[in-house]
Amino acid sequence: MLVGYLGPKGSFTHGVASHAFLNDELIPYESLTELLKAFEQEAVSAAVVPVENSIEGSVHETIDYLFHHGDIQTVAEIVYPIQQQLLVAKKDRPIHEIYSHPQALAQGKAFIDRYYPKAKLEMTASTAYAARYVSLHPEKTIAAIAPLSAAHEYQLYVQHKDIQEMAANYTRFWILGKKAVEMPTSLHHTEDKVSLALTLPSNQPGALYKALSTFSWRNINMTKIESRPLKTALGEYFFIIDLLMEKEEWIHFAFEELSAMEIAVKVFGQYPVYTVNEKEIEQ
Amino acid sequence: MLVGYLGPKGSFTHGVASHAFLNDELIPYESLTELLKAFEQEAVSAAVVPVENSIEGSVHETIDYLFHHGDIQTVAEIVYPIQQQLLVAKKDRPIHEIYSHPQALAQGKAFIDRYYPKAKLEMTASTAYAARYVSLHPEKTIAAIAPLSAAHEYQLYVQHKDIQEMAANYTRFWILGKKAVEMPTSLHHTEDKVSLALTLPSNQPGALYKALSTFSWRNINMTKIESRPLKTALGEYFFIIDLLMEKEEWIHFAFEELSAMEIAVKVFGQYPVYTVNEKEIEQ
Repeated sequence: MLVGYLGPKGSFTHGVASHAFLNDELIPYESLTELLKAFEQEAVSAAVVPVENSIEGSVHETIDYLFHHGDIQTVAEIVYPIQQQLLVAKKDRPIHEIYSHPQALAQGKAFIDRYYPKAKLEMTASTAYAARYVSLHPEKTIAAIAPLSAAHEYQLYVQHKDIQEMAANYTRFWILGKKAVEMPTSLHHTEDKVSLALTLPSNQPGALYKALSTFSWRNINMTKIESRPLKTALGEYFFIIDLLMEKEEWIHFAFEELSAMEIAVKVFGQYPVYTVNEKEIEQ
Repeated sequence: MLVGYLGPKGSFTHGVASHAFLNDELIPYESLTELLKAFEQEAVSAAVVPVENSIEGSVHETIDYLFHHGDIQTVAEIVYPIQQQLLVAKKDRPIHEIYSHPQALAQGKAFIDRYYPKAKLEMTASTAYAARYVSLHPEKTIAAIAPLSAAHEYQLYVQHKDIQEMAANYTRFWILGKKAVEMPTSLHHTEDKVSLALTLPSNQPGALYKALSTFSWRNINMTKIESRPLKTALGEYFFIIDLLMEKEEWIHFAFEELSAMEIAVKVFGQYPVYTVNEKEIEQ
C-alpha cells in the first residue's frame, strides 16, 4: 500500500508514518495541500497529516481543507510527542541564523531568547527542510530546529537536546483512509472519538449554545471546540468539535437533533486514538 | 504621543496607525512581541496590533500575549480592508519567486495557482519586509505580495491589483492604550464591544456550556468565540469571546455569575469599533 505523508524525509509526520506503517511504501509530499489532493485523487491509499499541537493549536491548512473539500474520512488518530533539537553541521561554532518552521521557532522561543538572543530567525516550510538546508551549507554558521529523525537523515549534530518550551508537547496526527487500518502493537489504543464541523444558520442568535445543548444534556464528553472563519465575512465561523465516542447511539440522536435545528454537521471521522511513548522515538 | 506599530513602514498596521493617529509620532517594531513588550514597559503610549483576519483567523501571537502577560487594555478596534497587490521592481518580466507573509501567501493562493503555478513561494516575517526585499534586489525575477502603501514606500510597480482571494477581506486591529483615544472623522464608529478570555475549571464537564448560558439567557449577543490551547496539555483551552456592548449592566451580572462558577474572566477591553472605507485607503 502507498502511504503519503507531509515531507520531506525526517519530518515529524515521517516519524509518525514510520511508526504506523511498518511494511508499506511511504511517499513524501511537499505541502499539505498537495498531499490531501493526492489522497483525494487516489494516488495514495492513506495519508498522514498533522491536525493539532498542544502549544500552537490547530493546523489550519489541514482542518480548512477537510472542511471545504470533498468527503475525506479519518480512520485513526496518533498522539505523538514533539521533541525539538537544535541541529548544526559542525559542532560548537557560533550560530548566527536559526532556520525552522514558524511553529517550531515559536516552540523554541524561550530557548532562543536565552541562548541565542541575537540569532536571526528564518522561516522554512517545514522543520525537515530547515535541517536539509543546514546540511547543504556546512560552511555557514547556521542551525536548524528539527526532530531527531532529521539529524539522522541529514547527518547533523545535536548541539542542544529537547529545546521545546514545555515537556508536555504533543501533536495529534490523523490517518486518512478509505477503511480502518490495523496498527502495530508499539502504538497504544487509549480511546475512541468522533470529529465533526458544525455550521450554524446565520443570524440565529444563540445557535452555538443550542448546538452544545444537544451534547451537554446527554452527558456527551466534548474534548475540543474551536472556531474557524468561514472565509465569507469577518465574524462568520464554523466549529470543529471532538466528542468522546462512549455512547454511540446518543451521539446519533444528537446529530438528528442538530439537523432538525438546521445546523449542518460534517463528520470528519469516527476513529480510535493511539499514543506513542517518548522512549519509542529515541531509538 | 509615541505610537508603536507592527512594522516595517508600509505594512497594513502602518496604514491603520496612519489613519488613526494623524499628529503623533509612529514607531515601527520588528515583531509583535517586541511591540507588546515596548507598550508594557511604557516606551510607547499606544500600540496598534492586528487581532483577526476574516480569512486566516486570529493572530495568535497577539491573543496569546494578551492572555498570558500582564493587564493590557484595548481602547479601540479598527476594521480595515485588506487589499493585496503583486509588486515587482521591473514591470512585465517573468516571476520565479514570490515573497510574502504566510497569511498573505495563503490569501493569494487562488491567484498564484492560476497565474504563477510554478513560482516558488518564500515566507517572510511581514508583507512589507517582502516588498523591501524585492526593492533591494531589482536584478532578480521576484515579486512580493504586499499592500499598496508598501509599493509607495519602496518604489515598486503594481503588476497585478487586488489579488486577494475574496472581495470581503478585512482585518481587525486593536489599539492598546491607557485611556480612550479620539479618532479622526474619517473613521466610522459602528458599535461597541467587550472582549474577554474565559478559563474553565478543569475536569468540569459542560463548563463551556454553562459559561455560554450566562450570556445566552440574557440575550447578550456573542460575535466571536474561539478556543486557544492553554499550553499546558493537549486538549486544555481558554476561550476568546467578543460580546456586543448593548446591555452593560447585564454583562456585569453575567461576569459575576461566571465568577461564582469558578470560571476565570480576563477582560481585554471594552471599546468602540471603527471601520475604514476602501476608498480612503486608495489615496
